[in-house]
Amino acid sequence: MEQNISNIDFSKSGGIVPVIVQDANTKEILTLAYTNKESLERTVSTGNSWFWSRSRKKLWMKGEESGNTQKIKEILVDCDSDALIYLVEPEGPACHTGERTCFHNSLKN
Amino acid sequence: MEQNISNIDFSKSGGIVPVIVQDANTKEILTLAYTNKESLERTVSTGNSWFWSRSRKKLWMKGEESGNTQKIKEILVDCDSDALIYLVEPEGPACHTGERTCFHNSLKN
Repeated sequence: MEQNISNIDFSKSGGIVPVIVQDANTKEILTLAYTNKESLERTVSTGNSWFWSRSRKKLWMKGEESGNTQKIKEILVDCDSDALIYLVEPEGPACHTGERTCFHNSLKN
Repeated sequence: MEQNISNIDFSKSGGIVPVIVQDANTKEILTLAYTNKESLERTVSTGNSWFWSRSRKKLWMKGEESGNTQKIKEILVDCDSDALIYLVEPEGPACHTGERTCFHNSLKN
């Protein structure tokens, strides 16, 4: 089924929804970030991954400083319309530490 | 690197962190849910996927009503320790609609 931006439920977390960034080719999960309506609109219109920074309280484009952009291949919406997947082609590592993915730690049992 | 439950930062979203549930074999993303410290402890101790329901304000185990449990293979932690991946072996569909994944809708460009 197809969804529009106007169908996304931004109300549950104060105007933002979580975005899972997944490598479109390898299916590796790269990052968990957040978007509001405006950064989602920019993502759709530009084809680059835009987010809302909860700590800096501003829009940001992945790679705007590092050059490690993420080109959008497809955006998926969950059954409640309150979580998204950006399927991307990453240019370089996703993590600010230089790791390919932000999920490079394992939880000890 | 290994992380402990005590390292997880539950402070940013009022005691919960988002959990990405990913099929350990196919790498398909199944669900985005939330956990607090208690449901994470139950997940680690039982090997079943436990969460915190924001709408019902209670702990719940995936499959407790449907039987569609998710067995934990590994738990990953992101670089900020404020988001998790449960790598699971799903028993049956993840979505309450009967779909294999909750992310079965595409966002229209």
